[in-house]
Amino acid sequence: MTDLLDRTAPTDTPILDVLSQRWSTRAFDGATAIDEDALAAALEAARWSPSAFNNQPWRFIVARRGSDAHAKVVDSLVAFNQAWAASAGALVVFVAELSRDGREFPSALYDLGQAAAHFTVQAHSGGLATHQMTGFDPDAVAAAFGLDGDLRPFTVMAVGAAGTIDDAPVASRDGERAPRVRRPIVESAVVNA
Amino acid sequence: MTDLLDRTAPTDTPILDVLSQRWSTRAFDGATAIDEDALAAALEAARWSPSAFNNQPWRFIVARRGSDAHAKVVDSLVAFNQAWAASAGALVVFVAELSRDGREFPSALYDLGQAAAHFTVQAHSGGLATHQMTGFDPDAVAAAFGLDGDLRPFTVMAVGAAGTIDDAPVASRDGERAPRVRRPIVESAVVNA
Repeated sequence: MTDLLDRTAPTDTPILDVLSQRWSTRAFDGATAIDEDALAAALEAARWSPSAFNNQPWRFIVARRGSDAHAKVVDSLVAFNQAWAASAGALVVFVAELSRDGREFPSALYDLGQAAAHFTVQAHSGGLATHQMTGFDPDAVAAAFGLDGDLRPFTVMAVGAAGTIDDAPVASRDGERAPRVRRPIVESAVVNA
Repeated sequence: MTDLLDRTAPTDTPILDVLSQRWSTRAFDGATAIDEDALAAALEAARWSPSAFNNQPWRFIVARRGSDAHAKVVDSLVAFNQAWAASAGALVVFVAELSRDGREFPSALYDLGQAAAHFTVQAHSGGLATHQMTGFDPDAVAAAFGLDGDLRPFTVMAVGAAGTIDDAPVASRDGERAPRVRRPIVESAVVNA
């Protein structure tokens, strides 16, 4: 598995291992059940992430491989994602709470992203791999789980034990080993004064 | 300073110290300059966060206390935030890239939130305190820094050395010591199957 998990980012300055080594594989172990302690810790980390006015505008659908809920989430994925994400020990839908009692939460998506990030940091620390997807049908998820109009499914995260290169779809195997790339920080820091 | 920094969340299950101990103070040390290495590492962590299709729809305005840029960002804050956030060693504006070359990025705010989260995790690991704010005028920031219409300032983060309780506004001092609270995870996990 080392060839998949040792994907440390080539950072310009040292950062925490759990941040530099976090990356989004498409090779999940389809036989190993999700590590329940690691999953619970990841959810707890999401719980304690910050949000505007501590509104906590997030909800989660946790669907372990083999459950009816899992089948519903898999059905909502685009075909390309179904091909690899269904193998992960769990699929977790990150749901934004866009409003509550008629009050809009303009930061809901931003706050949901933070919750997902805290989840991933804890998950990777606990030995889980993660891969977030926007390639799914949010309306299908909302209908399948009876979510009300305040709640918008925004991403689906595959979570589980990493597999080997053979677990990745053939079309994705080069990507599993391609160099990791990001724009230089000087191009993102429009002002640095 | 211990009374401010030791604000570990009362988690139901253990999570990484850097996640349980991260919290949003309003007491910053107004004399100490920002730790440049820690700031650079936090920006690098943000750089390597994930985003939909690796679009990296984020930009940063880094404004150290005393700079002209800092004065502009402080001017944009609501009065309540000015009272404490101006003391932080830096103010970092997190800017969403809503579109690029006419192509919209529907995940921009979510991805920006993840970048901010990665920033905070690394910052706290490096001994910096952080506090994110939505209480500012994004149009004023866009005008002050000449941002084009694709770029929307979304949060301002105070970043710097933590202070003591006396550095917090009088009205915020109880909050600095109040119990940390979040909804139980069972109320956020609408399905757990």
